[in-house]
Amino acid sequence: MRNVKVHLGPQTYGITLGKNTMAKLATGLKKYFPSREVVIITNKTVAKLYHSKISSLLASHWNAQWIEIPDGERHKNLKTVESIYHQLLKAKAHRKTGIIAFGGGVVGDIAGFVAATYLRGIPFVQIPTTLLAQVDSSVGGKTGVDLKSGKNLVGAFYQPKWVLIDTQFLTTLPHREFLCGLSEVVKYGILGDKKLFEFMEKNVGKILAMDHNALLFLIKHSCQMKANLVSKDEKESGLRSLLNLGHTLGHGIETLSGYTRIHHGEAVSQGMAYAALLSSKRGFCSQNDTTRIVNLLKSLGLPTKLPKFSKTAYQNVLSRDKKSAGQTIRYVAIQKIGKAFLCALTKQEITAYL
Amino acid sequence: MRNVKVHLGPQTYGITLGKNTMAKLATGLKKYFPSREVVIITNKTVAKLYHSKISSLLASHWNAQWIEIPDGERHKNLKTVESIYHQLLKAKAHRKTGIIAFGGGVVGDIAGFVAATYLRGIPFVQIPTTLLAQVDSSVGGKTGVDLKSGKNLVGAFYQPKWVLIDTQFLTTLPHREFLCGLSEVVKYGILGDKKLFEFMEKNVGKILAMDHNALLFLIKHSCQMKANLVSKDEKESGLRSLLNLGHTLGHGIETLSGYTRIHHGEAVSQGMAYAALLSSKRGFCSQNDTTRIVNLLKSLGLPTKLPKFSKTAYQNVLSRDKKSAGQTIRYVAIQKIGKAFLCALTKQEITAYL
Repeated sequence: MRNVKVHLGPQTYGITLGKNTMAKLATGLKKYFPSREVVIITNKTVAKLYHSKISSLLASHWNAQWIEIPDGERHKNLKTVESIYHQLLKAKAHRKTGIIAFGGGVVGDIAGFVAATYLRGIPFVQIPTTLLAQVDSSVGGKTGVDLKSGKNLVGAFYQPKWVLIDTQFLTTLPHREFLCGLSEVVKYGILGDKKLFEFMEKNVGKILAMDHNALLFLIKHSCQMKANLVSKDEKESGLRSLLNLGHTLGHGIETLSGYTRIHHGEAVSQGMAYAALLSSKRGFCSQNDTTRIVNLLKSLGLPTKLPKFSKTAYQNVLSRDKKSAGQTIRYVAIQKIGKAFLCALTKQEITAYL
Repeated sequence: MRNVKVHLGPQTYGITLGKNTMAKLATGLKKYFPSREVVIITNKTVAKLYHSKISSLLASHWNAQWIEIPDGERHKNLKTVESIYHQLLKAKAHRKTGIIAFGGGVVGDIAGFVAATYLRGIPFVQIPTTLLAQVDSSVGGKTGVDLKSGKNLVGAFYQPKWVLIDTQFLTTLPHREFLCGLSEVVKYGILGDKKLFEFMEKNVGKILAMDHNALLFLIKHSCQMKANLVSKDEKESGLRSLLNLGHTLGHGIETLSGYTRIHHGEAVSQGMAYAALLSSKRGFCSQNDTTRIVNLLKSLGLPTKLPKFSKTAYQNVLSRDKKSAGQTIRYVAIQKIGKAFLCALTKQEITAYL
């Protein structure tokens, strides 16, 4: 079992990670919710797999109620949020009730936003069950939902009290979703952790075979980097933006494809391959680095070719990007493997190599 | 012109108040929105009265867009919020665009919540146009909307960058709304400012005649007290709760009457008169203080008798109160004029003297 701290002054919290950390659930929760009242927000898939396990871990002296939301990014909207508010009221959730976000990124984003806004904010804990949520979305306090016009356009920065990561959950994760998580791990390697990138290059086999130690290495390194960036820049005024590597175009791809056909990690993989291409074309990084990035993504089974939409279509979605400020967009470019940087590019410049 | 500071560390902001402070609008805004891009959220009534005035104050070198929302508490809901998100996207509002909440409490609460959540938070300024918003809702960062089951059940603590209060706006305020504002001023007097309470007792005539100096005295004292309480307890974990004097039952009255027939300040006035009654009945304060409180409210033309709903109806809405924690509700009781305190009462105890 490992621990990673996210240093944020009075909002500082810990990430507990390892194999079978679930066993620590009741002890851990007691610290944050002395009233022993929690509402577990999850989706049907996760509930089916783990409802009885979690219920037995909390045993009878907890008042644990469950709210199930439909599965999938297309339900990450205000309608789902409003339905949860009403269920919380029905469950008589008050200001000291704890919310547990139990599931993947979508559940974490929605449940976190609900926790941030129900009664102007009640405490919450993240128990991410997908690799993507474990290495990325459960850490850092970004919560929110999509609007029809784009992803995560509504939300709040709201930090959890605790993040509990158990690699056991990954055993029931569909392979495609596992790969989506790896896409974000590659991202951490490119933007700031050369050792992590090289570890992945050398251990593709072990990683794809879900070797426990390899996974723990990936998750630990990813959480550590995310924790560092978030500690230095909670509200994403600078440094934290590096985490958007591959995401500017990635979000565009998701919007254009209607959030369903292409999964988030796949879109990010395509976005990173494109960022690598753009970076070498503009002379920011070497052609060799671009090749290594594309090769690693491919060897992990991740897509690197962008879906065919018109340049105008891509430019239109870029105009709505949260990272836009006036005429330019803050784009994350690559200097070398292990180092990314922010630059201001127009949407024409960003789409030049499509 | 006076200035009051709300001390909140890095979120510290100023309140500018006086007669014709509007003249300072462009200069003030430039400090917070160097890009000179603002979206003014207001309602139809306020827009009709002040659209051209504000537009001319901002003149041509500002990119000022307007969003009008329907008037009234019954539109303070997620539907209105969602419609504003879409209008902001259409207006191409980005992370550095400023939101100006221009109107009464409803506009401020909604616009503040939109500012807190659009793109996970963009900066905003409050220009309150009603007395109630000037002395209460525009200061302190409480934002939010209602759900069908109750008031302000969804929201965020999100501080404005600046609050600009101009007594000129009060000249166009309907008398009934003016009285609603006075209700909150009486509240400040009771809970912590004996001088303010006595000033009101002695100057009922001047106040009702809207004498400028009397108004300035009331607004300054109210903002000062609110600023102090908010500085000490932003997230309402203790001290700030005193501001809920009259509100526990007040919100219940509003819910039961469907938010329309009885206005917020009237419900608070009824709630305060009841709190005064309960406090003397329970031996917390003297009968004389209760009489003075009820008399002041009456002399200002505010209602002091609760609308007739069944005890069960009142108890049911109290169970959903945000201030409830398990079996009891944090109720603000009165010790004497100028001093209130928090106590934990059951809903049966709260409704005992109905």
